[in-house]
Amino acid sequence: MDIFDLVGTQAFSGIGRLGVERLSATMAVGRIVATRVAAAVDVPAGAESLRDGYVVRSQGRKEGRELLFPVVGEIAAGSAPFGELAPGCACRIFTGGLVPDGGERVVAQEECHRLGDVVAVGETALAERRTHVRGRGSEIARGAVLLEEGARLGVDHLLALTAAGVEEVEVALRPRVAFFCTGSELVAAGEPVAGGRKSSVNTPLLHHLLPRYGAQLVEERLVADREEEVAGLFSRLAAGGCDLAITTGGMGPGKYDLVEQAFVAAGGTVLFDHLPMLPGRAILFGRLGETLFVALPGPPYAVRTLVHELVGPLLLRLQGARQFRPRAIQATLAESCRLRAGHLLQVKAGVLNIESGRCTARPAQVGEAISCFMLFPPGSEASLPGSFIEVHPVEM
Amino acid sequence: MDIFDLVGTQAFSGIGRLGVERLSATMAVGRIVATRVAAAVDVPAGAESLRDGYVVRSQGRKEGRELLFPVVGEIAAGSAPFGELAPGCACRIFTGGLVPDGGERVVAQEECHRLGDVVAVGETALAERRTHVRGRGSEIARGAVLLEEGARLGVDHLLALTAAGVEEVEVALRPRVAFFCTGSELVAAGEPVAGGRKSSVNTPLLHHLLPRYGAQLVEERLVADREEEVAGLFSRLAAGGCDLAITTGGMGPGKYDLVEQAFVAAGGTVLFDHLPMLPGRAILFGRLGETLFVALPGPPYAVRTLVHELVGPLLLRLQGARQFRPRAIQATLAESCRLRAGHLLQVKAGVLNIESGRCTARPAQVGEAISCFMLFPPGSEASLPGSFIEVHPVEM
Repeated sequence: MDIFDLVGTQAFSGIGRLGVERLSATMAVGRIVATRVAAAVDVPAGAESLRDGYVVRSQGRKEGRELLFPVVGEIAAGSAPFGELAPGCACRIFTGGLVPDGGERVVAQEECHRLGDVVAVGETALAERRTHVRGRGSEIARGAVLLEEGARLGVDHLLALTAAGVEEVEVALRPRVAFFCTGSELVAAGEPVAGGRKSSVNTPLLHHLLPRYGAQLVEERLVADREEEVAGLFSRLAAGGCDLAITTGGMGPGKYDLVEQAFVAAGGTVLFDHLPMLPGRAILFGRLGETLFVALPGPPYAVRTLVHELVGPLLLRLQGARQFRPRAIQATLAESCRLRAGHLLQVKAGVLNIESGRCTARPAQVGEAISCFMLFPPGSEASLPGSFIEVHPVEM
Repeated sequence: MDIFDLVGTQAFSGIGRLGVERLSATMAVGRIVATRVAAAVDVPAGAESLRDGYVVRSQGRKEGRELLFPVVGEIAAGSAPFGELAPGCACRIFTGGLVPDGGERVVAQEECHRLGDVVAVGETALAERRTHVRGRGSEIARGAVLLEEGARLGVDHLLALTAAGVEEVEVALRPRVAFFCTGSELVAAGEPVAGGRKSSVNTPLLHHLLPRYGAQLVEERLVADREEEVAGLFSRLAAGGCDLAITTGGMGPGKYDLVEQAFVAAGGTVLFDHLPMLPGRAILFGRLGETLFVALPGPPYAVRTLVHELVGPLLLRLQGARQFRPRAIQATLAESCRLRAGHLLQVKAGVLNIESGRCTARPAQVGEAISCFMLFPPGSEASLPGSFIEVHPVEM
């Protein structure tokens, strides 16, 4: 159950990926892949030794229960290819060294002994199942798909991408985002707070949260609750320059709540508002020219919640992410949870815990780090410990 | 079970916090708090209205089942304090507006009606349990501890810190870190790969992973497996300039494995090496003058694992983090897992899943994002689906 279930995905159907760019794989960490990525080369590129020891080619000269091989060369990791190893011969080889043509297996140095120019290997070592050779392409074959279109490139993907010779990837452009915290009572952090004025909590919150979903912040500003200020804001937004604009505050039914009127007056189209959801009852999602617009309520916990449930997913969708909706899992409620009257979907900040293999969730306290959002469907008046609930883990 | 259990915490007892600096709370996101942080002001700073409506002071003039209050003013969020509300009077008030002295409750506008200069309120609305007033300091009291020393400041903490007037916090300095990927076969990403040479996977891996634990990267370089190159590296490191130096590769028992010899020759002290752990059998942890030194093996999956299990925790410890060891949880193994011979603790990259409130883990595939490391204690030869195992979730 999420916002996309409440409003139906058709409200989002017109929203597609903005554009693409080519980046080095290293620079693309955290970005959404725009074109399927395949391995450019085999990994390993040639057969490689997995041990320090001797690469041998049968048959050595038998002496008791050992076979003797003349040592004809030495191959380190990074050495140029040796060429062909002659029958009955061995080469000293180090981990990562390229196994020469004809080399059948690597015998680890602790399983043989060197006698001058000859290495002696026991029969059992030559019969081992493991050859200590990593075959060409055995880890990743050239052409294998490493990342599908719409996947998020994470730091772990660099292991396969770098190894498989993928230097550049095509990723979605980062959406340009502007946000405006409305409220005449707000002052920027660090400015004096007196007489009903207060620091804007939403400003640092959005500043840190939005880039986690790929946003490129082009403007972040406080706006007073005055008709001409809010109207001026929307006429500027209508001129373009950003892909998503966000306001906080000014969305309730009161006299000083100006955002929706000003948005419509500036030519904005409302796609949905007033969701049957808490927080989210007073919300607006629309379009103003080429710019998507989301008006969030003012309380910071509502903003935190709706960034996770709506704004973050929208940003991912603008980048063509395959999985843009919040991931849902089931957890057992560990503490009772007081809920408000029940015709709404209620979303509450929570803390996830895993103990003895079971996943539990409890409400987050004031000032605590949030690790999930807990969902209570319409009709819930209270939820008791032990209830099974749906939660959306915080993953970014 | 983790590295700190294997070697005993005394190996780390000499490692303390490097130093502190003062930063604005916004700039301190992700940093380790050096001094306990307390609320500077009450939240809210004065009693506030939770609704748009009317703030009233008893007794109004009775008329049937309603009470009438003359409306003597208007208070918006951010308005200067009103002063005292006279008995029997009301003020128009908006959400976030400061409740005037004498104001007893806020009546939501949908529960009353305005008649010119007077507002009429039903008796039941005046008897409601909820006053729609948020008392001074009711959310956070001045002096309340918001973050303990050694806690990591997360984005969610900004909600309470900003609201409670905390402008600056004292945090640990970021450790200066240099890393060197050794191997004559390595080339930087983007350079041609031929004849046994390959791209250094560890370079982008460490570049992205280490800053997640607070590292400030001061040098990142490839170093050839040549005695004079490695010796030169350590003589430079001995001169100081970084808090932690890391090498990858060059740690096995082979002829080309030079790191340990060169480290000791440069005057380094070994604190521990050769852990009974896979990966980690060939590892070195020591001190070279003021610089801590960790030599990691070369294979990228080993590097990825040991950053999570050892290097990341060390970086957190250098910042005085209270919780620097990997967090351990229990999970059910979802797929069988082939293990190597068993006198070692084996750590394998895994993927965590939560389904129906139960937490399961399975081995990560090549090229897949890792969400946990699974621990198999000495003696495990194989682990079957359904076994209960310890895992360390990847949280950064």
